[in-house]
Amino acid sequence: MPMPPITPSRRDLLIGSALMAAAPTASTAATPVTGTPPVPPEGPRKTLGMVVFEGFELLDVFGPLEMFGMINDRVDTVLIAEKAGPVASRTGPKTVADVSFADAPKLDIVMVPGGSGTRREVDNPAFLSAMTQLAEATPQVASICTGSGLLAKAGLLNGMRATSNKMAWQWATAQGKEVHWVPRARWVEDGRFITSSGVSAGTDMALALIAKLYGKVLAQWVADRAEYRWNQDASDDPFAAINGL
Amino acid sequence: MPMPPITPSRRDLLIGSALMAAAPTASTAATPVTGTPPVPPEGPRKTLGMVVFEGFELLDVFGPLEMFGMINDRVDTVLIAEKAGPVASRTGPKTVADVSFADAPKLDIVMVPGGSGTRREVDNPAFLSAMTQLAEATPQVASICTGSGLLAKAGLLNGMRATSNKMAWQWATAQGKEVHWVPRARWVEDGRFITSSGVSAGTDMALALIAKLYGKVLAQWVADRAEYRWNQDASDDPFAAINGL
Repeated sequence: MPMPPITPSRRDLLIGSALMAAAPTASTAATPVTGTPPVPPEGPRKTLGMVVFEGFELLDVFGPLEMFGMINDRVDTVLIAEKAGPVASRTGPKTVADVSFADAPKLDIVMVPGGSGTRREVDNPAFLSAMTQLAEATPQVASICTGSGLLAKAGLLNGMRATSNKMAWQWATAQGKEVHWVPRARWVEDGRFITSSGVSAGTDMALALIAKLYGKVLAQWVADRAEYRWNQDASDDPFAAINGL
Repeated sequence: MPMPPITPSRRDLLIGSALMAAAPTASTAATPVTGTPPVPPEGPRKTLGMVVFEGFELLDVFGPLEMFGMINDRVDTVLIAEKAGPVASRTGPKTVADVSFADAPKLDIVMVPGGSGTRREVDNPAFLSAMTQLAEATPQVASICTGSGLLAKAGLLNGMRATSNKMAWQWATAQGKEVHWVPRARWVEDGRFITSSGVSAGTDMALALIAKLYGKVLAQWVADRAEYRWNQDASDDPFAAINGL
């Protein structure tokens, strides 16, 4: 039986739905977004540790912490550095490390951001060793931007699929010759590792992680509450092409 | 003369270009994004002051500071609070105020974020007075999220068009009865005030401000470098409707 002709109205629908599927989303819920998460907490609270170092990139750290902060009824966050206290970002604004690596609590998730400071930390054996110990003790390891360069340099990504910042691609991928680097990806998950592309990609990765841990309904609520257009498609990465990758 | 019939291919183009125009963008530059801004600095450096208070919202502060941080060859940033030192966000992670209001340098841009702390600061005359003095002395005033509630409470937005967070709309708009509140807007510019919607909207607003101050080529470079899909259309706000506005 021949396929029915595609009428203009059906073509519109096809074109429209294909583009809508590719485009970042906002919920289409008819009822207003409420302050109460739509999925009640289940099981014990989790602890998310964010590693910081001098020269971290602001949005690498605070995009994911914003998204996980929306579900602080079930997730605690802790900032971890070589020593507790103020830590300056690449451009100056500071955060405060709550604890040193030595005093870090048991974590459920650990995240490693990027930033110009990664260029120094790949040559800091004490940092790499402490980060490795933390990553080996934590069930879920995530990186943002050139943070995957740090994980790669420590050998943690050997044999794994991973991605990184697209502008710093040559530097990041040179940190791990045995990593299967994926150039066109907003983020890449392989086993207990999830690595994201540059800066803003960490926010989409964080929402993907929330969806994995707590379901997509809660992740969409988080995105809506943050008035954030979540890119849910890990393969939707326009920044690879514009960087010639 | 009758209009030529709209052929399927022409319809595709029209539909496609309309959707593309509405969708957040990435640059289509053929050459890789470089670390050097495409527009050289011109004129004196500017200073951007970000006001912080206990209970600020992380992404309200660090989305805009990330984008302006990409052009730190021409913009310095300073964090300002009632007193210098560590300041905790709504969910715990801290930043560090560089100076108190009394010690703030002359600014070119001042930004006021939102967060649960706004509910306390609207009843803090010392904070409102210091913020007002700073805003009156600064040529460009911006707010993110419920930060517009603080500006409104101080009377700074009387007679102006402004917007705010969509989930906290009732609270924010109640802070200023003489403000022309615009419910459906990613951000609103009126005179020297630019107010954005909730949390993530501040990042789009910051890029709009960079485009206004330095041109769209530089703003697109900033977005591309941050691997950020910039929503360039101030009227493109899906979060009004999902909050029943």
